[in-house]
Amino acid sequence: MSIKCAIVGASGYTGLELIKILIGHSEFELAYVANSEGGIKLSEIHRSMQNIFEVDIEKADAKEIAKRCELAFLALPHKSAMSFAKELLELGVKVVDLSADYRLELETYEKNYCTHEDSKNLKNAAYGLPEYYRDDIKNSSLVANPGCYPTAILLAILPFMDYLDLEQPIFIDAKTGVSGAGKKCVENTHFVTINENIFAYSPLTHRHTPEIVEKIEKIKNLKPEINFIPHLLPITRGMLVSIYAKLSKDIEPLEVLKEHYKGEEFIRIEERAVDVKSTSGTNFCNIFALKNKNALFINSSIDNLLRGASSQAVVNANIMYGFKESLGIPKISYSP
Amino acid sequence: MSIKCAIVGASGYTGLELIKILIGHSEFELAYVANSEGGIKLSEIHRSMQNIFEVDIEKADAKEIAKRCELAFLALPHKSAMSFAKELLELGVKVVDLSADYRLELETYEKNYCTHEDSKNLKNAAYGLPEYYRDDIKNSSLVANPGCYPTAILLAILPFMDYLDLEQPIFIDAKTGVSGAGKKCVENTHFVTINENIFAYSPLTHRHTPEIVEKIEKIKNLKPEINFIPHLLPITRGMLVSIYAKLSKDIEPLEVLKEHYKGEEFIRIEERAVDVKSTSGTNFCNIFALKNKNALFINSSIDNLLRGASSQAVVNANIMYGFKESLGIPKISYSP
Amino acid sequence: MSIKCAIVGASGYTGLELIKILIGHSEFELAYVANSEGGIKLSEIHRSMQNIFEVDIEKADAKEIAKRCELAFLALPHKSAMSFAKELLELGVKVVDLSADYRLELETYEKNYCTHEDSKNLKNAAYGLPEYYRDDIKNSSLVANPGCYPTAILLAILPFMDYLDLEQPIFIDAKTGVSGAGKKCVENTHFVTINENIFAYSPLTHRHTPEIVEKIEKIKNLKPEINFIPHLLPITRGMLVSIYAKLSKDIEPLEVLKEHYKGEEFIRIEERAVDVKSTSGTNFCNIFALKNKNALFINSSIDNLLRGASSQAVVNANIMYGFKESLGIPKISYSP
Amino acid sequence: MSIKCAIVGASGYTGLELIKILIGHSEFELAYVANSEGGIKLSEIHRSMQNIFEVDIEKADAKEIAKRCELAFLALPHKSAMSFAKELLELGVKVVDLSADYRLELETYEKNYCTHEDSKNLKNAAYGLPEYYRDDIKNSSLVANPGCYPTAILLAILPFMDYLDLEQPIFIDAKTGVSGAGKKCVENTHFVTINENIFAYSPLTHRHTPEIVEKIEKIKNLKPEINFIPHLLPITRGMLVSIYAKLSKDIEPLEVLKEHYKGEEFIRIEERAVDVKSTSGTNFCNIFALKNKNALFINSSIDNLLRGASSQAVVNANIMYGFKESLGIPKISYSP
Repeated sequence: MSIKCAIVGASGYTGLELIKILIGHSEFELAYVANSEGGIKLSEIHRSMQNIFEVDIEKADAKEIAKRCELAFLALPHKSAMSFAKELLELGVKVVDLSADYRLELETYEKNYCTHEDSKNLKNAAYGLPEYYRDDIKNSSLVANPGCYPTAILLAILPFMDYLDLEQPIFIDAKTGVSGAGKKCVENTHFVTINENIFAYSPLTHRHTPEIVEKIEKIKNLKPEINFIPHLLPITRGMLVSIYAKLSKDIEPLEVLKEHYKGEEFIRIEERAVDVKSTSGTNFCNIFALKNKNALFINSSIDNLLRGASSQAVVNANIMYGFKESLGIPKISYSP
Repeated sequence: MSIKCAIVGASGYTGLELIKILIGHSEFELAYVANSEGGIKLSEIHRSMQNIFEVDIEKADAKEIAKRCELAFLALPHKSAMSFAKELLELGVKVVDLSADYRLELETYEKNYCTHEDSKNLKNAAYGLPEYYRDDIKNSSLVANPGCYPTAILLAILPFMDYLDLEQPIFIDAKTGVSGAGKKCVENTHFVTINENIFAYSPLTHRHTPEIVEKIEKIKNLKPEINFIPHLLPITRGMLVSIYAKLSKDIEPLEVLKEHYKGEEFIRIEERAVDVKSTSGTNFCNIFALKNKNALFINSSIDNLLRGASSQAVVNANIMYGFKESLGIPKISYSP
Repeated sequence: MSIKCAIVGASGYTGLELIKILIGHSEFELAYVANSEGGIKLSEIHRSMQNIFEVDIEKADAKEIAKRCELAFLALPHKSAMSFAKELLELGVKVVDLSADYRLELETYEKNYCTHEDSKNLKNAAYGLPEYYRDDIKNSSLVANPGCYPTAILLAILPFMDYLDLEQPIFIDAKTGVSGAGKKCVENTHFVTINENIFAYSPLTHRHTPEIVEKIEKIKNLKPEINFIPHLLPITRGMLVSIYAKLSKDIEPLEVLKEHYKGEEFIRIEERAVDVKSTSGTNFCNIFALKNKNALFINSSIDNLLRGASSQAVVNANIMYGFKESLGIPKISYSP
Repeated sequence: MSIKCAIVGASGYTGLELIKILIGHSEFELAYVANSEGGIKLSEIHRSMQNIFEVDIEKADAKEIAKRCELAFLALPHKSAMSFAKELLELGVKVVDLSADYRLELETYEKNYCTHEDSKNLKNAAYGLPEYYRDDIKNSSLVANPGCYPTAILLAILPFMDYLDLEQPIFIDAKTGVSGAGKKCVENTHFVTINENIFAYSPLTHRHTPEIVEKIEKIKNLKPEINFIPHLLPITRGMLVSIYAKLSKDIEPLEVLKEHYKGEEFIRIEERAVDVKSTSGTNFCNIFALKNKNALFINSSIDNLLRGASSQAVVNANIMYGFKESLGIPKISYSP
C-alpha cells in the first residue's frame, strides 16, 4: 500500500520537480497538490504537465492534508513554511521542508532570517543531507532539506576538512543557473539581464554561508573561515562549485574522495573537472579535486533543482520510510 | 523473458538517447552497443553515463549482433545503414533504422541520396510513424524511422489535407535546435556561429521535402505543393513547425485536430501556440491550429532527438513486439 | 553649431540605444535626458554608461525641453507619447516619436489602441521609413518611427507587391529577440521561460498587423491579406522575417530586390538566407528572396532595437535636418 | 597623412575585430588584409562586413607588406607569428603581435611553447599592457600584445600585490566566452557541448599561468603562488575574473583601486561586483574588490576579443605613434 503524500507550493520550479518525481514513484502516491491560492489547474501553471497529470491545485490547508496524507513536502518560502510545518506535525503528518526554516540552529536562523515561530520542532529536525545524516533522517518526522549551495559545497568540502590549513581563508566560487533564483520576474531573472552575461551577487554576504559554516562545525567540529561568492549564469539549471583552500597535509585528492565516498550511489568521483550538464536532470553530485603543491582545488556540480532541492527531498522521504534511497530517483541526465 | 537488442551508432546524440531509453525499458535488454570503431568505453564518449551504464563500445559486427540479439537499432548515417541492415535482416535480426535509407520509394531515394543497395528490403520496410502505420509496423521486420522534420510536419498537416486548397502553395517554416545538425564540429554547429543568431538553411531545397511529399501522397493520395524552409535555432534540442496554407473548406481547426487524434496517447492538442520546452525530453507531439478567414496556421513541436528519432524508434519496437506503445517511453518533459 | 536634442524615456532599451548613438553624433548634442520619474543617475540604470556619459536623469517636463532643445526623441509607451508630443509641438519642438501614437490613421489607431488625443498632429505626422517617405520626413516636424516588425516586413515585401497573387493569403512568420518585449519583468521575459525555447505569441492577432496593412495600402494602393505570426526567440536582440506568398508573375526575386533598392545605403541584398547576427548593432536591413515555381520566400533581418527603433529614429532626424542620412549611424555589427 | 597598416590573420575573430576598429580609425589606414591562403573576399569569411569593407584577402607576404605598410598587426597562431614578425622587422615594418611569441622570457617561452626562432627581437619586445608599460611601448618597434587572461588578471591583481600574504596560495577563477577558444570547430566549441553547461579546463596547468607570474615578478619583483583555473562559459564574448587571496595588511580595497588607477581612462572601478556585458564591445576593464577580514576578493571583467586582444592592440599602436591612447578605441558597450 502506497504512502499518500502532499506537495504544498506546487507553482514553483521545485514544486514542479517534486511532482515529476512523485508521479512516477512506486511507493509514494501524490494525493494532494496545493499552493497558497488554489483554484487553478496544474497544467495551466505547468503546461508540460498537460495530459500527464491533470489535477486541480487546491488552496493549501493543513487539516485537509492531515485527512488525506501522511507525508507533506513543503516547497514554500521561508517563514510560510514553518507555520505550515508546525500545524502539520501537530496533526501527525511527517514533513520534508525545502525552505530554510529548519536548517539552522535557532540563533543562526534568527540572525540571518527572522524570528523563529516553531523552535520546538526546530530542535528535532534532521538535516537532510543523506550521506551525512542517514540515521537522523530515518528517525525523524521533520527533515530540513539543505539549500542548493550548501548541498554542492558540503559534499565537496567535507572529505577534505581534516587536511586543510584552517588558519587560511577558504574561498568558494559558486555559479548557479537562473532557475535557482526562482520563478519571480525581477531584473536579475530577465532574459536580457543575464543572457550573454555573468556576475557575482551578494559576494561574501550570501545567506547560505552560515548554513555551510554551521554544518561543517557540527559534522567535523572545526571552524573554517568560509568566503562564499555566488554567481548567476546564463543557463536554466545546474550549479558548479569551485573551492579553493590550502592543504595542511600531503594528500592525493582523488584518493581521498574515492575512499570517502565509497559505496555512495549518488556521488560520482570524476577524473577531470566536472561539468554541469552531466548532472542536469539527476540526483548526482559529481566531484573532482586537484592540488598544486599545497593549493587545493575542489570542484563539484549538481542540478540545483534536483539534488539541490526536489530529488534530494524524495531521497530523504525514501529514508524516512525505509525504502531504498534510490527508489524513483532520477539518474539519467538531460545530456546532450 | 526480455528481448535482447543492439544499438549500432552509439557515439551520436540519437545513439545516446536510445541508450537512455533502453536501459530503463522493462522488456528490451540492451545487449550490444557498437560504433564503427569500437575500443572505447561508453562513458568516455558520453560522460553523463558514468556509473549508470558502463560498457565497452564494440566495433559493429553484424554476425556478432545476430548471435546475441534479435533486434537492432541503427543510428548510422544513410548509406552505412543499408549495408548493415541488409546483412542483419539476412541473419534474421529485426531492424529499426533511424537513417533515411528505407524511408523513401526507390526512385525518390536515388534522386535525393545515392544508389540504393538493398532495394529488396526497401519494398518491405514499414514507415515508422505510429499514428499512421501501426499495422505495417506490427508486421514488419524492418522499420524505417521517419526524419525529425517529417515527423513534426506530417503529424501537423495530415489532419488538414482534405480541407486545403491544393492549387495554392503550402509553406512550412520549421526551426530546429543544434542537436539536429549532429555531433560533427562544423561552422554551423560552432557556438559562436549560432548563439545570438538564427537563420534559414537549404531553403526550398532541403532533403526532407521529398519524404514529406511522398508520405502525404501515400497516405492521402493527394499531391500538395510543399515549400519547406528549415531554420537553425540557438537551442540544443527541440523543433518548432509552423505550416501556412489556404483552406478550401470552412472548418474549426482545433476541432479537426481533436477529432482526428482522439485516443492518441502521444499527441497533445493545445489551446494556444505550442512551445518546444514542453515536449523536450518526451515523445509527445504538441499541435495547435488557428485560422484567419481562409488562411490556416498549423503549429507543432517535438523533441527532435526523441519523437524525431530515438523515442519514436522505441515506440516502433514496442509495436513490432506487441508491447504497449508507451512502454518505457518518456513523457515527463525537461521543463523548466 | 550643433542641434540640441532631448531623449524622453531614457530608462528603456531603445532609450539607451538612442543615447549610445547621440553621444557620438557630430551634429546632434544630447542636452536633456529624462524619464517619467527623474532623480537618478543614468549610469545607475544603465551601468555600461559608467564613465562614458554621466548625467542625472530628469523628470520629463515639456517646457524645460522647449527651453533647452529644438528636437525631442520620445521613447515612451503609446498614449504617454501623444500627450507629450502634443505639448512639445505646440512649444515649437520637433519630435521623433518611437511609439505607435502617430503611425496609423485615426480610425485604425483607435480600433487597435485607444482614443487618440492629438488627431490634429496625427494628420501631419510623417511615417519614418526613410526608403519610402524621405520627402515627407524632410518636411515634417513630427515623425512617427515605425514599429520593429513593420520595418523589417515592409522593407522586405514592398518590392514584390506588384508581382503577388493578392487573392491568396500572405503569411509572415517573424521571430524577435527578447529585448523586443521590453524591459518589463514578466513571465515571457523570464530567462527560464524562453531559454531553450521558442513559441509564437498573438498569432494572427498581433497589433502590428494593421500598421503593415495600412502602409502597404498607402504606398502601393493594394490590399493584401496579411497573416502575421510573431515568435519569441532566446536571443537578446535581432529580428528575422520570413514572408510566404504566391507569385502572379514570373520574376527573378534577387533581381527585383537589387533593382528596387539600388543606391540604398542601409539595405543589403544577400545571395543566401539572411542571419540576424550580421545586422546586430547596425541600422542595416538584410534581404534575400527565393522562389520555387510560383511560391515566393522573402527573408529579412534587422536589429530590432536599432533599425527597428533607435537608429532609424536618428536617420529620420538626420533627414529632418538635411544631414547625410548615415551621419553617426552604426554600420559595424556586433559579430562575432 | 595616415599611417598605412596591415592585418595578417584576417580570418579569425581577433582579425575581424582589428578590421572593425581600423576601418573607423582616423590615423591608421588599413592598406593590406591577409591570411595564410588568400584568394577570397573578406565578406565571404565575415558576412557582417558586406558593403562595409569589401576587399580581397591576400596571401600573406612580408615583402609586399613592407612595400605598402609601415605597421603590421599579426593575428596568427604562436610560432607562425614569430617567423613573420622577424621578417617584417628586418624590412623596417613595426609590429604589434597578438600571439604569445614575444610575451615571455626566452626560457619561459621555450618551456611552455616551443623553440624560439627570433630571440634577438624577443629581447626588445615591449609587453603591451598600456597601464604598466607605456614608455616601453612608445619606444619599441615590436609590441607583444598580452593574452586575454593575463590582461584581465594583471589589471586586477597588480594594485594589491603589496598587501598580500605571499606565503599563501592565490587562486584565480576565470571564466571566458567561447570566442576565446577561437574559430576552430572542436568538441568544446560545439554548441551542444557548452550550451546549458559550464566547466573548468586545464585547471592549474593553463599556459597563461607563466605569463601572469612572470609579469608580476617583473613589475613588482614579487613571486606569488598563482593557481589559475579557467572555465568555459556559454556566452560568445566576455571574460570574468575572480581572484582570491589573503591580505597581509588592513586596506580598503576600493580605495586602493581608485588611488592606483586614478586618471586611467580604460579602467572603471565599480562599487559592486562587475558583470561582463558592460564591457562587451569596449576596451574597458571593470574592476571591483571586497574583503572579509583578511580574505580578499578581486573581480574584473573585459571583452576577451577587444581589451583581451584587438582593441588593446590598437591602443598599443596609438602609443607607438604618439596618438591619443583612446583614438578610435571603442567605449560604448553592446548592452543591452
